[in-house]
Amino acid sequence: MTANFAGLGHFEGKQPLEMMMSDAPRRRSGGRAGNTRGNRGAIEQMPWRIVENTDRPIEPLTQEGIEAIHEGAMTILEDIGIEFLNTEALAIFKDAGCKVEGEKVFLDRHWVMEMIGKAPSEFTITPRNPAHELTVGGNKLLFGNVSSPPNYWDMELGRKVSGTREKCQDFFKLSQYFNCIHFVGGYPVEPVDVHASIRHLEATYDKLTLTDKAAHTYCLGSERVEDTMEMVRIAGGLSHEEFEAKPHMYTNINSTSPLKHDWPMIDGCLRLARRGQAIFVTPFTLAGAMAPVTMAGAVTQSIAEALCAIALFQYMRPGTPCVIGTFTSNVDMKTGAPAFGTAEYMRATQMTGQMGRFYKLPIRSSGVCAANVPDGQAMWETSNSLWAAVQSGSNVVYHAAGWLEGGLIASPEKFIMDCEVLQLIQRYFEPIITRTAPEDIAIEAIKEVGSSGHFFGVQHTQDRYETAFHQPFISDWRNYEGWELAGGIWTAERASAKYKEIMADYKKPPMDVAIHEELRAFVDRRISEGGAPTDF
Amino acid sequence: MTANFAGLGHFEGKQPLEMMMSDAPRRRSGGRAGNTRGNRGAIEQMPWRIVENTDRPIEPLTQEGIEAIHEGAMTILEDIGIEFLNTEALAIFKDAGCKVEGEKVFLDRHWVMEMIGKAPSEFTITPRNPAHELTVGGNKLLFGNVSSPPNYWDMELGRKVSGTREKCQDFFKLSQYFNCIHFVGGYPVEPVDVHASIRHLEATYDKLTLTDKAAHTYCLGSERVEDTMEMVRIAGGLSHEEFEAKPHMYTNINSTSPLKHDWPMIDGCLRLARRGQAIFVTPFTLAGAMAPVTMAGAVTQSIAEALCAIALFQYMRPGTPCVIGTFTSNVDMKTGAPAFGTAEYMRATQMTGQMGRFYKLPIRSSGVCAANVPDGQAMWETSNSLWAAVQSGSNVVYHAAGWLEGGLIASPEKFIMDCEVLQLIQRYFEPIITRTAPEDIAIEAIKEVGSSGHFFGVQHTQDRYETAFHQPFISDWRNYEGWELAGGIWTAERASAKYKEIMADYKKPPMDVAIHEELRAFVDRRISEGGAPTDF
Repeated sequence: MTANFAGLGHFEGKQPLEMMMSDAPRRRSGGRAGNTRGNRGAIEQMPWRIVENTDRPIEPLTQEGIEAIHEGAMTILEDIGIEFLNTEALAIFKDAGCKVEGEKVFLDRHWVMEMIGKAPSEFTITPRNPAHELTVGGNKLLFGNVSSPPNYWDMELGRKVSGTREKCQDFFKLSQYFNCIHFVGGYPVEPVDVHASIRHLEATYDKLTLTDKAAHTYCLGSERVEDTMEMVRIAGGLSHEEFEAKPHMYTNINSTSPLKHDWPMIDGCLRLARRGQAIFVTPFTLAGAMAPVTMAGAVTQSIAEALCAIALFQYMRPGTPCVIGTFTSNVDMKTGAPAFGTAEYMRATQMTGQMGRFYKLPIRSSGVCAANVPDGQAMWETSNSLWAAVQSGSNVVYHAAGWLEGGLIASPEKFIMDCEVLQLIQRYFEPIITRTAPEDIAIEAIKEVGSSGHFFGVQHTQDRYETAFHQPFISDWRNYEGWELAGGIWTAERASAKYKEIMADYKKPPMDVAIHEELRAFVDRRISEGGAPTDF
Repeated sequence: MTANFAGLGHFEGKQPLEMMMSDAPRRRSGGRAGNTRGNRGAIEQMPWRIVENTDRPIEPLTQEGIEAIHEGAMTILEDIGIEFLNTEALAIFKDAGCKVEGEKVFLDRHWVMEMIGKAPSEFTITPRNPAHELTVGGNKLLFGNVSSPPNYWDMELGRKVSGTREKCQDFFKLSQYFNCIHFVGGYPVEPVDVHASIRHLEATYDKLTLTDKAAHTYCLGSERVEDTMEMVRIAGGLSHEEFEAKPHMYTNINSTSPLKHDWPMIDGCLRLARRGQAIFVTPFTLAGAMAPVTMAGAVTQSIAEALCAIALFQYMRPGTPCVIGTFTSNVDMKTGAPAFGTAEYMRATQMTGQMGRFYKLPIRSSGVCAANVPDGQAMWETSNSLWAAVQSGSNVVYHAAGWLEGGLIASPEKFIMDCEVLQLIQRYFEPIITRTAPEDIAIEAIKEVGSSGHFFGVQHTQDRYETAFHQPFISDWRNYEGWELAGGIWTAERASAKYKEIMADYKKPPMDVAIHEELRAFVDRRISEGGAPTDF
């Protein structure tokens, strides 16, 4: 080894530094970078902050490419038409003078663009805790928990099981605990042990009591949507007027690709739009399956499916806060299984980001993977989709923590590993890292150390070492021997242990007793009434 | 589950597609996306191709920031000075009229910029197989194998052991096998079982016979450098004139930060420069350890350390092909352990990329991590460093496959997992993904499918499904049940199995018998002469 390291010139790695550490000042072994930031407890995490994406987006499309996709989307809306399986929507389109044949709607491009022009490019969503108010649009970057997996997997269990209310509650706690999670999507795992007729009542009750962040409603029938809106209103201590004055919640719908919008999605959106709440429209266009095998074709279809719905909402209530979403990816043409975090997925996300800016609409993408367990593949696929979200200029990132098996599994270990990456992205956008003021260039410190010694001891370092670098909470930076001595634990196992600590450390956000009583009373009354029909 | 999926609107994931698959045409279950591309055998990999990075770089520095770092670097060179522990270099600096005090050199900024201006912004490196010639610079993106870990780790072994010649040979085979690996760095793992005096002879013999890609020499003493150059010349069947006519190999040196260049590195570079070979200068500036704790300060010091060496080589031989490298990262201030793939690392890489373009020099960065095993942390850290390399506009990416424990461990599983990510990056830059010609927008196919059915069966899909999407070789895209049925194997274990298949599939590149005899005879003679001194 001596021979190997004496000529440092051919070495790049830990050894030289560790050799130097021997005479590093003891002071250094003090505090942690996190000490002065975020909360104490199971982990030292970054503070709540709405990330500002200051990077120029990656834009693979030329101006001609943008025009070609826009032209394609307009041609779909004008000549091919979109099915709306919703009589109210059809009536509204007729009222607007659009051509309607049966359930198929044909939209003039000028009307579509006029309507899209009425949508705000930026808006806020104010949850029951105003400190967690969100700004959606501009250069803001928001992360949400995984939504809607029917199944659950964790390391201890080691197998896939159906979601339960208890597990769903645990994910709500994680979503509240992590400052890097800005909003709470749908059910992080489906509580299938709660009957479908009352599931929305109990799950929304859990969400609104275990978290105080912006909540979501599924569009699964009028009663569910109305119940959820009422519960969000009650939880926020709002009058009906106050609730409708600005967005306090949101929904997300997928179109039923190709070229179809289903009844409950549109019905729910119309109900939210009427009451001034926010709507994300996210076509689910898998290239080669429910969309063309070419990525540009899949993006074009996705844009058309999104725009027609957003145009509908803008006509009905101009200024309805809307987000255009992307869920375009490729499939494994051998098996038809969807792939996520692929090169094709990344480019489709970036292309949709360009189109979203073209239409001046906020953009939503996702943090997704096809992997079945929180292993290497899960993390490179998820990293790819998260960085694509950043590069695309997305404003809202769904499923950013906890997603496995293409959305069929929610996992607490994956949730915790993803939050480590989300904090890294949050840190990545902190200006301190790239600041170039004289004290950052640090000529005096460089002169002080000169050509020998090191920077551990100098005042310039001592003044900054506690906050100079982001301190991760699940990464293990020890050398192999130190890591082995500590049990030689792989990341997913470390996340499993950390998960228990975090659960023990979770604190329920306060809720006014009277509000809680009113909320619970509403839930109990609706349950006694039988909840919502399950005839869907 | 019916309740869960009938209302597709709140679901995003695999299920709907798998439901659709039942009536997908049987034709689809045919060939693989890779069939028409790359070689057959253990895996279907992407073809050899020099990636063109068509994305606009991410540039966190403002123009003022670039000027501040440049001003800082120039101030270091002019006022603080750099130590060159090399008498020949000191004589050359004196000859150039630079101020030299003992071993410390002070360089006038105008002279430095004049010299840097002589370096080519783009050049080629031609290995013994001209088909593997490299273009370095411009928007070209090249990947190389891990270099220099003293230790080896694999899944079967499950522990860290010293590198051996046999393991080193295995990595040479992997480096030759994978088309996404463009050049062969130093020893992928140190063959410590070969005596240091003859290690360079046997290891370079192995490299030149087991691979035909661009090779590297360590600067670890005059004899080693001269021996390696001679062996590359012989392996290429080149006359001395032909060898010196253009670059056929390269070296990489680290400065001995802070502000010092060691004897063997400079000696080796001068020897390569005299014979027209390529030089990468990569300061190893860990912020808070051998460089300022501020990232801008660490980058500034790194730039100064690189520029003075490149200026030296340009004065001695104008036009010497040089690359400016970055190896700036942060440390864990609790333990002093270096961190890789962090937010600070990514920004430092992007900042150095901006400075490299400012100086019109090709840029080198790395694919690195701090993780000790090929787990989730290893893959998010490595993904971050690889994407930072892409975003920085780097031309050469060192350690792009196989690196663990901050460079102290080489792992075949990590190598294979990294190559999956490298292929994904290669695919990411294929124009077909973002093409927007009429057949890509696919209006006719969208019209044909309309609002019902799917795209599996249509001609537009049938004409393209085999090549529409990249086919990975180690990712598992099956659903959980299919994955479980196949053994429920995590990524690193899959890579371990694939590693054996690849080894069995490896084919030694042809070498002319006479050339091989000459090469072996040279090695045997130099061994009989005792090889190189080990008094370093």
